[in-house]
Amino acid sequence: MSERIHASYFIETPYPVEQAIDVMAGEQSSGTFTRLASETDDLRANHGAVVEHIERLDSVDVPSLPIRPPKARDGTPLYQRAKVTLSWPMANFGPSLPNLLSTVAGNLFELKEFSALKLLDLTLPTDFARRYPSPQFGIAGTRQLSGVPDRPLIGTIIKPSVGLSPQATAETVRQLVEGGIDFIKDDELQSNGPHNPLKSRVDAVMPIIREHAERTGRQVMYAFNITGDIDEMIENHDYVAAAGGTCVMVAIQSVGLSGVAHLRRHCRLALHGHRAGWGLFSRSPYIGMSYIAYQKLWRLAGVDHLHVNGLRNKFTEDDASVIASARSCLTPMFDPPTPGCEVMPVFSSGQTADQAVDTYQAIGSTDLIFCAGGGIMAHPGGIGAGVRSLRQAWDAAVAGITLDDHAIDHPELAQALEAFR
Amino acid sequence: MSERIHASYFIETPYPVEQAIDVMAGEQSSGTFTRLASETDDLRANHGAVVEHIERLDSVDVPSLPIRPPKARDGTPLYQRAKVTLSWPMANFGPSLPNLLSTVAGNLFELKEFSALKLLDLTLPTDFARRYPSPQFGIAGTRQLSGVPDRPLIGTIIKPSVGLSPQATAETVRQLVEGGIDFIKDDELQSNGPHNPLKSRVDAVMPIIREHAERTGRQVMYAFNITGDIDEMIENHDYVAAAGGTCVMVAIQSVGLSGVAHLRRHCRLALHGHRAGWGLFSRSPYIGMSYIAYQKLWRLAGVDHLHVNGLRNKFTEDDASVIASARSCLTPMFDPPTPGCEVMPVFSSGQTADQAVDTYQAIGSTDLIFCAGGGIMAHPGGIGAGVRSLRQAWDAAVAGITLDDHAIDHPELAQALEAFR
Repeated sequence: MSERIHASYFIETPYPVEQAIDVMAGEQSSGTFTRLASETDDLRANHGAVVEHIERLDSVDVPSLPIRPPKARDGTPLYQRAKVTLSWPMANFGPSLPNLLSTVAGNLFELKEFSALKLLDLTLPTDFARRYPSPQFGIAGTRQLSGVPDRPLIGTIIKPSVGLSPQATAETVRQLVEGGIDFIKDDELQSNGPHNPLKSRVDAVMPIIREHAERTGRQVMYAFNITGDIDEMIENHDYVAAAGGTCVMVAIQSVGLSGVAHLRRHCRLALHGHRAGWGLFSRSPYIGMSYIAYQKLWRLAGVDHLHVNGLRNKFTEDDASVIASARSCLTPMFDPPTPGCEVMPVFSSGQTADQAVDTYQAIGSTDLIFCAGGGIMAHPGGIGAGVRSLRQAWDAAVAGITLDDHAIDHPELAQALEAFR
Repeated sequence: MSERIHASYFIETPYPVEQAIDVMAGEQSSGTFTRLASETDDLRANHGAVVEHIERLDSVDVPSLPIRPPKARDGTPLYQRAKVTLSWPMANFGPSLPNLLSTVAGNLFELKEFSALKLLDLTLPTDFARRYPSPQFGIAGTRQLSGVPDRPLIGTIIKPSVGLSPQATAETVRQLVEGGIDFIKDDELQSNGPHNPLKSRVDAVMPIIREHAERTGRQVMYAFNITGDIDEMIENHDYVAAAGGTCVMVAIQSVGLSGVAHLRRHCRLALHGHRAGWGLFSRSPYIGMSYIAYQKLWRLAGVDHLHVNGLRNKFTEDDASVIASARSCLTPMFDPPTPGCEVMPVFSSGQTADQAVDTYQAIGSTDLIFCAGGGIMAHPGGIGAGVRSLRQAWDAAVAGITLDDHAIDHPELAQALEAFR
C-alpha cells in the first residue's frame, strides 16, 4: 500500500520544465521562494513533494493563460506542455480531505511559472477510506431503497426549477408516481426559499410518496434539496427522514467539502450530489480539475449519487467527457479496492429514450440514474407514457436490440422517438 | 432597500446576445430548455431572473473557451462580448449563501451559449447581513486583540510550510515575538498533520506567546490553521481559545461556504481566511469569478481577514488586481452600509519594506496585515531588524516621506532596501 498521495497535472510553462515543476513541488510542500536554513535536507526528504514523472508534450508560441512573461533567454519563449506527477508523504497533512485540497489544488494554480495548470488525477492511500465513511448506500443501497433491482432508475427533475408552491410540487409528484417513475429530484435552485420552504414541501410531497408505496410496495425515491447552512441541513435531513423520505440532495460545491463530509456522518438517507458550478473546473482546458479527480473527493466525502450530464446534452460538454465521467463513478478508487466506494452516476440534461442504447453501449452498465425532463413531461402520450418509453428504451439497450426494432411493438417508445429525435 | 439580488457578468457568445442572456436567466431561475405549461406568466413574473442591463463590448473571431459551434447563420460566427446584469427575487432562495452560490455561480458556467462567462460583482439585500453574522472582530477587533491601534499589523508565515516539529515551530515563534512581530500565521499547508498536530503546536507555541504578552502587555496574534472536518475544526478552535490564542485560520475554499459560516457561529476568535485555490477562479479571464464578488461571500460567512497577495508578488497577479482586491475588503457591501462588515486585507508573497509606500499610496489605509517572509527572516540584521525595517517603511509611508529619505537615519530600513530591492 502506497503511503504517498499522487497527483497528476497538465502544465504549460515558458521556463525549463524541470525548473518550473520544482517550483510547483516546493510551493506545495516544504519549499518557499528562497531556500531557508531551516529547510534541511532531512526535512526535504521527509516532507518535500517528489516529482515522480514528467512526460513532455507539444509546445505553443502563445501562452494559454495570461502570464507575466519571463525574461527572454533566446528571443520569444516557447510554452512547453507536459504531463507531470507529484507525490506527497501522508505525514504532511494526514488523510484530511480539506487539507488534501489545499495541497493538490491550492496556491499552485497562481504560480507565475505556469500558463496552464490542470489537475488530472489523484491516487490516494486507503487511509482516506478509513477516515472518511464514503458512500453509505451507493449502488446496491440505492437500488434497495427504491425497489429497482437491476435496470437504471428512471428519474426526473421537478420543473419549473423555482416558483412552484409546495402544493403544486406535490401535484406534479402525484402525476409522476402514478406514471411509474423511480426517482424524482428537486432542482438545484429549489432548496429552502420562502416561497417553497423545505418542510412544507416535505409535508406536501411525502404523503403522496408514502401512499403510493403502500399501494404498490415500491417507494419512489425523492431527493429533497437541503443545500444550506450546516445546522439547517441537519435539521432538514432529520425532517425528511422522519417523514419517511429516502434521499436528500446537496449542491456539493455550494456547501463545500467539510460540510458534505459532516452531513454524511449524520446522514441516514441516500445523499444525492449535484455539481452546480462544475463549469468553473471544467470549461477551460488550461485551469481547473478533471472530473476523474473531482469525483474522488466527493465520493470520499460520502455522496451516493453524482451528476455527469448525459449524451447529446444541452450544455457544452461532449459525449466522450460524459462517458469518462460516468465510468469514473463506477470505478474502484483504491488499491486494493474498498467495497462500496462506487457511486451512481446521474445522467441528465436533454435526455430522452433516444440516448438509452448509446449510453448503455458506452458504459456497459445499468447502474445509473437516468433523468429526463421533457423526455417524460413532454411525451405525446403523457407522463406515464414518457416513463414507459424510457424503460422500453433501456430494455432494448440491455437486450441488444435497436431502438427502432424495439419500437415496432412498443408504441410509447415509437412515440418518443418520433417526438424527440 | 432592494429586495432583489443583482449579479453582473462578462460574457461572450456566438448567438444573438439577448437570446443567449435569456437562456442564462432562464436556466438560473424558472426556465428550462423547453417552455412548460406550468411556467405560467405569473410564475415567471414572480420568480424569473430579470435581465437588468446589457452593455455590448467588442467581438472576436475565435471563441475564448471551447464551445460547440452554433449552426452557421451567415458564415463564420462572431463571438460578441458583453457585460450583463441579472437580478433575482429574494423569494427564490432567501438569504442563503450556499443557495446564492448555486444560483449566481452554478449551472450557467456550462451553458452551450457561452464561450466566456465570468461573475464580476454581486449586490445583495441587507437580509443577508441579518441572517449571517459577518465578521466578528474585523478591523477594530483585530487591532484590539493584537494591541496595534493604528499602523498595519506586521506579520509573517512560519516556514518551511510543512515539516517543522511543534518544538521547531515554537523556536521560530520565540525569535519572532522577541523581534517585535505583531502577527504570525501557519502556512496553509500546515494544519493538523501527524508530524505537527494542531494541539501539540498550540501546546508548544502558546506559552511563548503568553509569556511575551505578560512581559510586554501586548499579545502577538498567531493564526493557527485549523482547516479540517467540521467537528475537528470546532474542537481545535476550542483548544486554541482555551490556551489563550486569539486567532484561527481556515483555507476557505477547502472547507467551503457552509463550513466556514458554521465555524463562524461558534467562533470566539478572529477568523483568518486563506484563499488557497483562488487561481481556479482568477487565472482565466473567461471563466470564474472576480475577487470583488468572491470576497463578499466570505465576508458574509464571517471571516475577519482575507488574503489579497501583495504588490510585485511572486505569483501571476498584477498590482492593479491586488489593489482592487484590497480596496474591496475595506468597502461597505450593503446599502445602507452595515457597520463592521469590512475585513482586514492580508498582503503577502514577496513582501518587504520596499512595497510599503506604494501599497499605502494605492489603498490609502493602514487597515491591513502586511506579511513578509524573506523580508523579515532574511534581513541582514536578523529577525528583529527585519520587523523594524517594515515598521519604519510604514512610518515613512504614512508620513509621506520617501523610503530613501527615511532610510538615511533608519539603518534597518536602509539595510532592507539594500538587500531586497
